[in-house]
Amino acid sequence: MTLSQYLPILSWGRDYTRTALSNDLMAALIVTIMLIPQSLAYALLAGLPAEAGLYASIVPILLYTVFGTSNALAVGPVAVVSLMTAAALSNIVEQGTMGYAVAALSLAGLSGVMLLAMGLFRLGFVANFLSHPVIAGFITASGIIIAASQLKHILGIDAHGHNLLDLVVSLVMHLSQINWITAILGVSATGFLFWVRKGLKPLLTSLGLGAGLTGVLVKTGPVFVVVATTLAVWGLGLADRGVQIVGEVPQSLPPFTLPSFSLELLGQLLLPAFLISIIGFVESISVAQTLAAKKRQRIDPDQELIGLGAANIGASLTGGFPVTGGFSRSVVNFDAGAATPAAGAFTAIGLAIAALALTPLIYFLPKATLAATIIVAVLSLVDFSILKRSWGYSKADFAAVAATILITLTVGVEAGVSAGVGLSVLLHLYKSSKPHIAEVGQVPGTEHYRNILRHNVITDPSVVSLRVDESLYFANARFLEDKIQARVAKDSAIRHVILQCSAINEIDFSALESLEAINERLREMDVQLHLSEVKGPVMDRLQRAHFLSDLTGKVFLSQFEGASYLKAKRVT
Amino acid sequence: MTLSQYLPILSWGRDYTRTALSNDLMAALIVTIMLIPQSLAYALLAGLPAEAGLYASIVPILLYTVFGTSNALAVGPVAVVSLMTAAALSNIVEQGTMGYAVAALSLAGLSGVMLLAMGLFRLGFVANFLSHPVIAGFITASGIIIAASQLKHILGIDAHGHNLLDLVVSLVMHLSQINWITAILGVSATGFLFWVRKGLKPLLTSLGLGAGLTGVLVKTGPVFVVVATTLAVWGLGLADRGVQIVGEVPQSLPPFTLPSFSLELLGQLLLPAFLISIIGFVESISVAQTLAAKKRQRIDPDQELIGLGAANIGASLTGGFPVTGGFSRSVVNFDAGAATPAAGAFTAIGLAIAALALTPLIYFLPKATLAATIIVAVLSLVDFSILKRSWGYSKADFAAVAATILITLTVGVEAGVSAGVGLSVLLHLYKSSKPHIAEVGQVPGTEHYRNILRHNVITDPSVVSLRVDESLYFANARFLEDKIQARVAKDSAIRHVILQCSAINEIDFSALESLEAINERLREMDVQLHLSEVKGPVMDRLQRAHFLSDLTGKVFLSQFEGASYLKAKRVT
Repeated sequence: MTLSQYLPILSWGRDYTRTALSNDLMAALIVTIMLIPQSLAYALLAGLPAEAGLYASIVPILLYTVFGTSNALAVGPVAVVSLMTAAALSNIVEQGTMGYAVAALSLAGLSGVMLLAMGLFRLGFVANFLSHPVIAGFITASGIIIAASQLKHILGIDAHGHNLLDLVVSLVMHLSQINWITAILGVSATGFLFWVRKGLKPLLTSLGLGAGLTGVLVKTGPVFVVVATTLAVWGLGLADRGVQIVGEVPQSLPPFTLPSFSLELLGQLLLPAFLISIIGFVESISVAQTLAAKKRQRIDPDQELIGLGAANIGASLTGGFPVTGGFSRSVVNFDAGAATPAAGAFTAIGLAIAALALTPLIYFLPKATLAATIIVAVLSLVDFSILKRSWGYSKADFAAVAATILITLTVGVEAGVSAGVGLSVLLHLYKSSKPHIAEVGQVPGTEHYRNILRHNVITDPSVVSLRVDESLYFANARFLEDKIQARVAKDSAIRHVILQCSAINEIDFSALESLEAINERLREMDVQLHLSEVKGPVMDRLQRAHFLSDLTGKVFLSQFEGASYLKAKRVT
Repeated sequence: MTLSQYLPILSWGRDYTRTALSNDLMAALIVTIMLIPQSLAYALLAGLPAEAGLYASIVPILLYTVFGTSNALAVGPVAVVSLMTAAALSNIVEQGTMGYAVAALSLAGLSGVMLLAMGLFRLGFVANFLSHPVIAGFITASGIIIAASQLKHILGIDAHGHNLLDLVVSLVMHLSQINWITAILGVSATGFLFWVRKGLKPLLTSLGLGAGLTGVLVKTGPVFVVVATTLAVWGLGLADRGVQIVGEVPQSLPPFTLPSFSLELLGQLLLPAFLISIIGFVESISVAQTLAAKKRQRIDPDQELIGLGAANIGASLTGGFPVTGGFSRSVVNFDAGAATPAAGAFTAIGLAIAALALTPLIYFLPKATLAATIIVAVLSLVDFSILKRSWGYSKADFAAVAATILITLTVGVEAGVSAGVGLSVLLHLYKSSKPHIAEVGQVPGTEHYRNILRHNVITDPSVVSLRVDESLYFANARFLEDKIQARVAKDSAIRHVILQCSAINEIDFSALESLEAINERLREMDVQLHLSEVKGPVMDRLQRAHFLSDLTGKVFLSQFEGASYLKAKRVT
């Protein structure tokens, strides 16, 4: 445990080269241009003033640079976390009030402290409770809700709600308020951005442009739309005709802010902050690991928690809101050649310059344009194929993902992700509570024992051999008791039961007591209990208990040895 | 699925013999005598009038006779469930009011419906979440709380509370109110009952009495105390000197009652009813299975749920409160020779006669006597040895039992059992989230592969072989990703990774996606991923996914085959 373990910057900073510097500067420039509209848009999605998005991208990135381990991860506001922020805060304070912004700071601070604590106490495994299908379903459902929530900006109407049902009802109710100029602007911007993604790239490639230049031009699409629609609103005076604009944004570096320490507020934010931390961490770590693998580098999950924790605490002290490592911006950063976390620091400087100097330029930027960039970004997250893929592979996983999508869409993000996690844990426990137990017999001419239902095997009427394909623990201990009792009670010829333990990786205390009960009950029926092929660590444990001395039978090294012994004993 | 499966009485009733009848009648007589003081006492423990205990033992037993599968189980009020009833109801309604009795009916009804539903939908596995150590800890802690709660009757003072802390504080605060006559009566009764348990049996045996007669005499100890103290209170006029007595009990068969269907009340009772159902079921099924095994009989857990569900619904319709199969009374029933569930029916008839005819005789029965019978009964449940035994075997199990005992004593029964279940599930997931992963090498001269840290084995610098001793699922999928990436990133000589899957009983969808990610990331590092010794059912699943076609390496039947193949390939 050295200082440089907690401050990875001390390792990579020492060897920082000129090449790395120029690579990092280039990557930072591209990411900065991409982040300006994105961070403004995600602030609006979170229900906050546009500048909060810029602030949330400056100090958090700097802090991640110091504490994080990924060379390419770009930290800042992301779509799903912004949606979760809006959902959490709207239940507590009214959007647009001062209290709302302060609650956002508290949410970021609380989430930061949780992430930091999980990192320091090495509790990152908590994130493992979120199974892949649940995350995939949750992100898909969130993408739909986010896109639906932005339709009001595209159409220039009022609409509220934090699940799809409420949003659709609200949109339909307010449809008569539609502002046609906003709608034309919004729909064209959305259409153009979709075309940039789907149509421009093939076009440029067919025109003979290099992949690099094509990539850069495609990435600047949103910036082009921002400039074009801002000019249109300014030149044609559309703001006076009901088009909602971003308006005045203070020209300032991130302010120093303090979150509220009201216990009541923090209590209400506890669960949302926890869910945001976990979702943000999982999203961030998978991006970081994927990118690190491409360069045979390694990510330290516990240190990542510390990095993200510091970034969120930073956000709460500088007018921001919850942040995490974003997928698309990190990929852009990586593709643009970011060599070290310093690229993030340079991005932060770029955004600070933007916050100081460029904000007057976005006075006339229509909100519909920001909504269009959000819609196009999040619809790429929507992927229902997870339903089909999980259905084909495992019904339990399908159930978890279907429940997550359904509940997220109809009830909300917190309920959806909680239901998904709860259900997948329950289904896992359910599956392992009814393990596969095969009655085995000897394959003729070999020392192998296989399932009597699948193979033509030799059995002995006085001996039952059972192979349990699962570790024994509290959730399946009683199941084994039932199975053995049912098998032995109906067949009075049985004198021996051999448990083949080759697939048993653990026997917990409940299972030990169940084995003791099985041993005792079999004794009452005048049947001996034997074990075979017990693994080393399991045997070590059993030896610490009384079980082996109470066992009516023996422990055999192999199933074959056990069966042979019992056969020989009966013959003599 | 036949009718007799749901109505076991149709099976055993058809073959009912005269011998069985005389055995059942004898057992019923003994159990009835034992149950009279016990059922009155548990009603007081539950905060209800004494007669509720008799009522809760009549119709519920009859219904269990029809639907249950155990020949010896005696259903009625038991100590732990009565305590949980009192704890649940006291939070909602004031003890002694009409609403309290009605809430008890609702609690029994709700619990009955839950048990019935779990039986019909075969959801009995839910009870498996309650690990053996958690139950043992919970029962020990409950026993202490129950004994402490009865001290007020022994001392003749007021005291309230549903955890040990509150009770002790309340007892000390009210100590000045002590009624010395009650205290003398109570302490003598308790002392006598302890002596009957510990001292009388050896004495009678040493006097040459047979084991059977000794047993009967010991069991009638509580009846003797009831008679003696009632006579003392009546003869000496102690009721006028402040000794609390049972007082007037209506001479009646169980009345027809209806529980409240108030949604608010039912909502408040939901969690307690669920916990009572689970605890009651677990207590009942383990007694039933232990007794059944002695006669090579079988208990059907799902049908037991139906039997207990019917019994509780019966209790809610006939002035009772939540019931379950009790340990001590079932053992007495079994020892007395009960041959079929009919013994229960005869017990019910005996108790009905008692409710009709004997209640005037207990007018002067002091509450202190009932408290003494409860204290002596529950202190036999208190067993801290579980702490020592689980400590020696597994620290995780120890943590779960310690938390259960501590939280039950300091906070209460519902919090205690919930914490125990939650913690044991979390610890199980935690353990399986960091599975044992061994790097293996070839034992010289054999085809065996063993842990390189424990054995002197042959390895190949370009091949890493890893054996995962756990099924792969969402909680450990990411752990495996980290482990492999960490191992491969630091050693650039590696060209092949072989996962030995002999201990993997399942690969869920998250783990499949992790394997895909591992495969992809290894490909980026120019390393091939291979699998060996994949089990049949796991292979079936993998074949349904794309994974095998994307796999950069091969799937080998055995680890040895894989290593040999890679060696041969490199040489050529």
